[in-house]
Amino acid sequence: MTFELDRTAAVTHQVDGVYAAHLDAGWVVGGGVNGGYVLAVAAAAIRAELADAGHTDPVSTSGYYLSPSVPGPAIVRTRVLRRGGRRSTVAATLSQLHEGVEVDRVTVLAVVGTVDAGGAPAGDPAVEALRRELPPVALPPIEECVRTADAPDDVRRTAPLLQRLDLRLDPACAGWAVGRPSGAGVVQGWLRLADHRPPDPWSLLVVVDALPPVSFDLGLPGWAPTVELTVHVRQRPVDGWLRVRHATRTVAGGSFEEDCEVWDEAGHLVAQSRQLALLPRASKVPS
Amino acid sequence: MTFELDRTAAVTHQVDGVYAAHLDAGWVVGGGVNGGYVLAVAAAAIRAELADAGHTDPVSTSGYYLSPSVPGPAIVRTRVLRRGGRRSTVAATLSQLHEGVEVDRVTVLAVVGTVDAGGAPAGDPAVEALRRELPPVALPPIEECVRTADAPDDVRRTAPLLQRLDLRLDPACAGWAVGRPSGAGVVQGWLRLADHRPPDPWSLLVVVDALPPVSFDLGLPGWAPTVELTVHVRQRPVDGWLRVRHATRTVAGGSFEEDCEVWDEAGHLVAQSRQLALLPRASKVPS
Repeated sequence: MTFELDRTAAVTHQVDGVYAAHLDAGWVVGGGVNGGYVLAVAAAAIRAELADAGHTDPVSTSGYYLSPSVPGPAIVRTRVLRRGGRRSTVAATLSQLHEGVEVDRVTVLAVVGTVDAGGAPAGDPAVEALRRELPPVALPPIEECVRTADAPDDVRRTAPLLQRLDLRLDPACAGWAVGRPSGAGVVQGWLRLADHRPPDPWSLLVVVDALPPVSFDLGLPGWAPTVELTVHVRQRPVDGWLRVRHATRTVAGGSFEEDCEVWDEAGHLVAQSRQLALLPRASKVPS
Repeated sequence: MTFELDRTAAVTHQVDGVYAAHLDAGWVVGGGVNGGYVLAVAAAAIRAELADAGHTDPVSTSGYYLSPSVPGPAIVRTRVLRRGGRRSTVAATLSQLHEGVEVDRVTVLAVVGTVDAGGAPAGDPAVEALRRELPPVALPPIEECVRTADAPDDVRRTAPLLQRLDLRLDPACAGWAVGRPSGAGVVQGWLRLADHRPPDPWSLLVVVDALPPVSFDLGLPGWAPTVELTVHVRQRPVDGWLRVRHATRTVAGGSFEEDCEVWDEAGHLVAQSRQLALLPRASKVPS
């Protein structure tokens, strides 16, 4: 059985370092294809390029977004910058043909290595003694959270992405859905993929960008373009629900940061990410 | 008058997109050249390549470190990926000749744009109403902090970097210098460049990596190699002292993150960064 994410983010080797992909319309949200999914497609090519290296986890992945992706064929060009015994560094660019011209969508730098299981012993007592983890965010029980699968028809039409997810938002910061944003700049909830694909280091690239943007909770319903998204996968998740928290602390200078933390069902911090997103310009601010 | 940072991070145009630089021995710390300074040298080449674009501030810069830099000549190869009216995206790689072979030191993706002055009005009341900033860290008065210029001779010999800075560490998290790390995973203090060069968006690339690593405050005195460092410059600093805070919240899975926030003397958040650094491996842990 192939899970949906693996099927829709699959890449096919073409020639040296070049992979073909097909961005799936199921991952569209608003006017474009979800940035985390696009990053995962690029990372799938990076992983394939390093298949013989013995390490395939995206330890650190930075995506710089160049133009909005659209459903359809895509090409990922990879270039291994450093091949090491324990980790390697790769550059990749995902592009699409637009009116016969190849247009870059996202360019990526990544370190690929091996991510240990959550709570795996450090192997040395001195390092083990330093262990600390950001504790998991407190969320209401899953059954008390807001199922995004129950969103109104028009929302589900503009965000087919929601059908890929089983997302239960903390009602305390889901009021924007009914016109009452909390203003806290926080969006958080329980998440798993709709077909229950077990989370792994690679799928966390999708997880960190799957929730509605914190700008919704600020009262800005429009699209906030991502300049840059960096994801650090810190520990290997166990199967089950993930807790995901998005928050922003500084909205100034025309931008805001969206920090994301992800914990697995065992309570381990498995990923952290930060993206820099642009505030709507004056002329585009919804009234 | 040329300030030290501008002089030592200067680049000279060679051929299309290629710049020559000279990594200065004054920025050495421990066994290598400081990562923030190396990032600033790469950013200087990126800025030069976009000199005609009308935007020169490093809005977002991600450096992936490939090998330790050494003092001496370096080459920065830049490639403009997207040239826009308000911001552009550039890739760059800084390399050095090692025994006749060119070795990459750091590879960079960056968005260059224009950073507004701290507290500049958003231009639209709806966006202005959303303004929020992480408040500046509370620090003891400058004169009650620990002057790193007063460090013992042997420290100053292995860290000539300290002579480039006027750094006053909060004594609450400077105990590692006398063998008593606080264990909090925090290093913070007041900072300006030693020759009082006014801070600007570009110099903040150096600022976010200038303090001793948080691993010192954890009781790990050794070198913690940086996998990746991303810097977001959020607002343009005023002249004066900067407040800088480094903290880590998760030390697990063989790595720790070092989050850095920088505020200017007016109290505005001017930069944020995060780096992923590797914990010493078992065989290398200091006893």
